[in-house]
Amino acid sequence: MSDPHARGESEDRREQLLRIGTELFATQPYDEVWITEVARAAGVSRGLLYHYFPGKRAFFTEIIRVETDEMARLTDSDPSLPARERLRLGIDAYFDYAEQHEPGYRAMHRAATGADSEIRTLVDRLLDTQTQRIIDGMSNPAATSPMMRLAVRAWLSFLITACLDWLDNREPSRDALRELCIETLLGATASASRATS
Amino acid sequence: MSDPHARGESEDRREQLLRIGTELFATQPYDEVWITEVARAAGVSRGLLYHYFPGKRAFFTEIIRVETDEMARLTDSDPSLPARERLRLGIDAYFDYAEQHEPGYRAMHRAATGADSEIRTLVDRLLDTQTQRIIDGMSNPAATSPMMRLAVRAWLSFLITACLDWLDNREPSRDALRELCIETLLGATASASRATS
Repeated sequence: MSDPHARGESEDRREQLLRIGTELFATQPYDEVWITEVARAAGVSRGLLYHYFPGKRAFFTEIIRVETDEMARLTDSDPSLPARERLRLGIDAYFDYAEQHEPGYRAMHRAATGADSEIRTLVDRLLDTQTQRIIDGMSNPAATSPMMRLAVRAWLSFLITACLDWLDNREPSRDALRELCIETLLGATASASRATS
Repeated sequence: MSDPHARGESEDRREQLLRIGTELFATQPYDEVWITEVARAAGVSRGLLYHYFPGKRAFFTEIIRVETDEMARLTDSDPSLPARERLRLGIDAYFDYAEQHEPGYRAMHRAATGADSEIRTLVDRLLDTQTQRIIDGMSNPAATSPMMRLAVRAWLSFLITACLDWLDNREPSRDALRELCIETLLGATASASRATS
């Protein structure tokens, strides 16, 4: 197994299994996805799937880990940019991610509240990273108040719901959706700021 | 079983089982709640529990049905009141419900994305009712646009996250939380209205 070619194939196979799993978990509740179905869709045996992942829970957790890491990486932006520009770029990157990784994005949010604590921890960690980035971008003395953290965290739920709704219905336009999200965040943080001052 | 006294006892028992189940499902993922545990906590046999509810899924579904019906009923307000006053009363009633039915409120939202389609349907129906009430209260020509519906629906996710966070941390004050939620809704709907006009 130290042959680099074989290792490459093994890595490809692992990624293929994760990709197929992501699609199945995006469209079906956890309990309704069967490992046999994943193996069949990948054209491999159940045994081979278990060679890569010790069980269904571990397989699903790995899918969510890959998706949350990827989203955190892709939505990061240059901290030297002006705050409003960073926000615009961050939300654009967020919608890009959601469009390009639609099954993963859906699986992540389907998993976020129903699943076990390890998965909730992964999704909560992503949300905490995103909340902190937004707060770090503010030049506002109220930025570190509990009220502001709550407002930003609640706004992320607004963003997620708006994005999932938009993926379903594809209206309004993506640009209009982005403006709605930016203006709602600015409204929420201005309100939190007034309450704190 | 036609004795009214016995029927009263049977109804009480059913409600007691639902109450115990609500508490367990509020604090643990669905898969980690065992019917045996519910029966033990209620001091009844598994068999008696199955006499009232045919299975764990039906039991859980009934819990969510009771909670969503109750919340829809309690958060309704007099349509003859001015819109802003109705909104304030509606959000106050919402927080009252969340405080007084904390396990049920948590169970409902824990269930909303992870669970099966019947339960998602119950929670979606509640969210649709709430979205429609808010839209009906607007005297705004843009009220019926897809953009406005999306903005209000996304704001309900803001409200839910804000409320769950507040139940965990109990800060900011409930009044400050209500103002944050009202101002964020007004910001989101003003933005949706501008985009639509």
